[in-house]
Amino acid sequence: MNINPSISYPASEKIYVSGKINHIRVGMRRINLTDTVFIEHGQERHEQNPPVVVYDTSGSYSDPATAIDITKGLPRLREAWIAGRNDTEQLSQFSSRYAGERLADHASGAMSFPVVHLPRRAREGKAITQMSYARQGIVTPEMEYVAIRENMLNGEAGIPTHITPEFVREEVAAGRAVIPANPNHPEAEPMIIGSRFLVKINTNIGNSALSSGMEEEVEKAIWSCRWGGDTLMDLSTGDHIHETREWIVRNLPVPIGTVPIYQALEKVNGDIGALTWDIYRDTLVEQCEQGVDYFTIHAGLLQAHLPLVKSRTTGIVSRGGSVIANWMTLHGKENFFYSRFEEICRILKQYDVAVSLGDGLRPGCIRDANDAAQFAELSVLGKLTLTAWKHHVQVLIEGPGHVPMHRIRANMDEQLKHCHGAPFYTLGPLATDIAPGYDHITSAVGAAQIAWYGTAMICYVTPKEHLGLPDREDVRAGVIACKIAAHAADLAKGHPGSQLRDNALSKARFDFRWKDQFNLSIDPEKAAEYYHASRIAGENDHCTMCGPHFCAMKLSKQCINR
Amino acid sequence: MNINPSISYPASEKIYVSGKINHIRVGMRRINLTDTVFIEHGQERHEQNPPVVVYDTSGSYSDPATAIDITKGLPRLREAWIAGRNDTEQLSQFSSRYAGERLADHASGAMSFPVVHLPRRAREGKAITQMSYARQGIVTPEMEYVAIRENMLNGEAGIPTHITPEFVREEVAAGRAVIPANPNHPEAEPMIIGSRFLVKINTNIGNSALSSGMEEEVEKAIWSCRWGGDTLMDLSTGDHIHETREWIVRNLPVPIGTVPIYQALEKVNGDIGALTWDIYRDTLVEQCEQGVDYFTIHAGLLQAHLPLVKSRTTGIVSRGGSVIANWMTLHGKENFFYSRFEEICRILKQYDVAVSLGDGLRPGCIRDANDAAQFAELSVLGKLTLTAWKHHVQVLIEGPGHVPMHRIRANMDEQLKHCHGAPFYTLGPLATDIAPGYDHITSAVGAAQIAWYGTAMICYVTPKEHLGLPDREDVRAGVIACKIAAHAADLAKGHPGSQLRDNALSKARFDFRWKDQFNLSIDPEKAAEYYHASRIAGENDHCTMCGPHFCAMKLSKQCINR
Repeated sequence: MNINPSISYPASEKIYVSGKINHIRVGMRRINLTDTVFIEHGQERHEQNPPVVVYDTSGSYSDPATAIDITKGLPRLREAWIAGRNDTEQLSQFSSRYAGERLADHASGAMSFPVVHLPRRAREGKAITQMSYARQGIVTPEMEYVAIRENMLNGEAGIPTHITPEFVREEVAAGRAVIPANPNHPEAEPMIIGSRFLVKINTNIGNSALSSGMEEEVEKAIWSCRWGGDTLMDLSTGDHIHETREWIVRNLPVPIGTVPIYQALEKVNGDIGALTWDIYRDTLVEQCEQGVDYFTIHAGLLQAHLPLVKSRTTGIVSRGGSVIANWMTLHGKENFFYSRFEEICRILKQYDVAVSLGDGLRPGCIRDANDAAQFAELSVLGKLTLTAWKHHVQVLIEGPGHVPMHRIRANMDEQLKHCHGAPFYTLGPLATDIAPGYDHITSAVGAAQIAWYGTAMICYVTPKEHLGLPDREDVRAGVIACKIAAHAADLAKGHPGSQLRDNALSKARFDFRWKDQFNLSIDPEKAAEYYHASRIAGENDHCTMCGPHFCAMKLSKQCINR
Repeated sequence: MNINPSISYPASEKIYVSGKINHIRVGMRRINLTDTVFIEHGQERHEQNPPVVVYDTSGSYSDPATAIDITKGLPRLREAWIAGRNDTEQLSQFSSRYAGERLADHASGAMSFPVVHLPRRAREGKAITQMSYARQGIVTPEMEYVAIRENMLNGEAGIPTHITPEFVREEVAAGRAVIPANPNHPEAEPMIIGSRFLVKINTNIGNSALSSGMEEEVEKAIWSCRWGGDTLMDLSTGDHIHETREWIVRNLPVPIGTVPIYQALEKVNGDIGALTWDIYRDTLVEQCEQGVDYFTIHAGLLQAHLPLVKSRTTGIVSRGGSVIANWMTLHGKENFFYSRFEEICRILKQYDVAVSLGDGLRPGCIRDANDAAQFAELSVLGKLTLTAWKHHVQVLIEGPGHVPMHRIRANMDEQLKHCHGAPFYTLGPLATDIAPGYDHITSAVGAAQIAWYGTAMICYVTPKEHLGLPDREDVRAGVIACKIAAHAADLAKGHPGSQLRDNALSKARFDFRWKDQFNLSIDPEKAAEYYHASRIAGENDHCTMCGPHFCAMKLSKQCINR
């Protein structure tokens, strides 16, 4: 692979904060600022501006002290914690038939990740999910890690914060928050998804049968972490899904999700009629042992719901949902994700893979929003939540879709009513259908609102949504639009310390500390590029937008100081 | 000028709908669609899709039957209506000293617009504003025009609609809606700004002392109408303001706004201390007679408010506000916009120029949102509204700024409480400070919400906001992001017929009528470009996003039809 994955942010340092309970250190990004310079009584004076510490999703890629080698994978951060718990065992081989075949297949050898890590699984009778630990009152290193991470040193900066390791434990125990943490993905830094924490964003990558090679996918995966992606779903549907995912998992510092039915369907060459529980089950085990941290499973879409879809404008727009709907129709049987759900949970609990209950009937257009089909499925997801929790399996609930603004709140309310507090994870919602090419924006409009109302994680949408596969620049645009929505929601929810960065950036703006302004922004490169495109050499106290006479901030200063 | 201003939209026709009361015809855009083709009982069947009529801001530029010549200006649509009312007189010369000087100045002759139209003004004792007509019970051609325009043939399409000419009259009479309609800008098509009508968007153009020539400004002005700008503010602050504006006004099919203090300040070479009422007054008259339809006047920012600004992070960020604040501080006198407000109204009423009461103290960052300074000014704007209405002068109220989502509603509530129902016109609000380079998105997030709550017009923000002057592509990105917010709000407010376009586009999407989908979108070119970038020749029933096996819509159809 010919990728340079190192990430550097301007004027930023990687810092680590140590745990107090466990032997852990949590990476963060500290943005260093220049002084405010002003004239007082004819003298030039300097006022220091404290650095701003921000949440960092880039893992070791932004740490110059860590040697990065894509062919070896990231450092296995959590390996010792997991081994230390002594409740998992390393298997001598992969349990999945398919994984064994791939390992033996020399034809795909050239594409295989060079290092083989044998899988870990719960020992017989052991409950190894973060939820089970939390329910037992154990504060795991993962829990302390996310508590430190969410705080961003706010406590030390004097900002009151409720986020303690014990608070994290309580939230995970109650099912109100999820820490995706498959022992087979020890490279991932722990993070938490729950409405009382920072709003998280998920990015999607993945090739389809039609495009996008493996190298490009790995590069896009790291690129998405660079811009702020908190989790990543690999939605590949083409060739070499297994090998591509291995490269991604081993090099990904954030949890990874998949929709296992995609790969299962590829295994039967797209013939939905040929799909069987056995193939699906083997795919689940294959991916559990590879290190996937959460699975989207469309277990709430039932035969009884299908008639409700007929009057829709855009039918079923969930890929997984449409596959299982066809399977049910072809076989005249109930959704096997539903009928086998307990069996699924028994697999997932052995690897602490969270289930993200998919909304196969999410509305694909404004007209279909909040209809009987959508809400019928949502109430089934609520019932499945209790089943999963019985097995200590962590649960996310997926949500729409396309929803006009005045119907967004009802989505959150219905989810709260039916799903027992499990975190909501939504795609958008897109607030109108009429803007293909700009759906990262229609999505940001809706996502900011639903996140403010309590959605814990929002899925990015790129400008290519509805039109084609995103390229690198689309991924950047999608992550940033989503990040804007998430951060706007954090501000509206009053998350501790989330406004520090806004305040620091605005002070820099008012001080004409342009570089500090750029460095504090979510895309320093873009901000600097736009500024320099029209800047005048040597003049720093105004920009071309207003020119020298009309810079309000300059005039405002004169007025205040007069 | 070397500009090709013609506008064509794919698969679209310019249509005209005639008035029933007045001899008028209202231009609209009809998007023609292809048939839905499907197989039934082995036979190919066609189902017609009715065309979709959409609101059109492009004026004659999109009418192939109108010859366009930038050096002659647009057809003077409203000239006969205005003359027919017999309450204005055409003057034999310009009343403003400055306008007279410019006309006599042969040095600027090369830049001057080739045709001189002598100005019209109210005859002595005549009240000529749309508000005064409305209060007298007169339904003007302008009122009937906007009623037809807002309806987009919804009544004929069977959609119930409350928008009649009489309804328009009532709203204008009550001050809840504004029809900017200076008799000296008869080229502009009437449009209405009010919370019970479609949400409108304003675009800003204008050179600063540092950039952007006249030709570029005219081109950007027409370009903004192409993408959906409803009004345009010329915020020029550099050289040749008068001549540039003349070119723009004569070629602009939408109302134009300005901030007259900008030009007044240029007349004294940026020396705020040298600004006088006399210079400002002459500038008002100059611009009234040139055809500006509304003026932003920062009349609510008082001496008493200045101490409230000192604790802010970003002080005063309104350009006009910072100028008048400095003037007050320098002279130790009250804001002359305020003290002379009745005199200002007496000028404006003679030309039916609306006043847009500027929010000189709008917050420039999240931390300053909804502070005492901002709300103190807002309540003064409410008092000034009553003064303006006494003179039948139409009023808009300007609003923020930077506001976190949970504080947006309070802005709308305060405005409703203090401003007697006058339409609210906001810049953003931007829901976070941390995204320079993407502030069209942070603005869309906030603007969609405040427009849903009742704001009548939202001002676009381009990706270059805070960084530099926008170029053509930035104008496009800014208009479209703003249009998304406005349309999302129309949907949420249930504006009659606004969902028709969403429904038609989504049906096209489900039918794989790709071209119809693009043609119905707000940027057909961008949608097509993204699609074709990754499309596979000959395959039309899926895109690269999902590939052939995983197209949910294709699978959904199979399932529904099975």
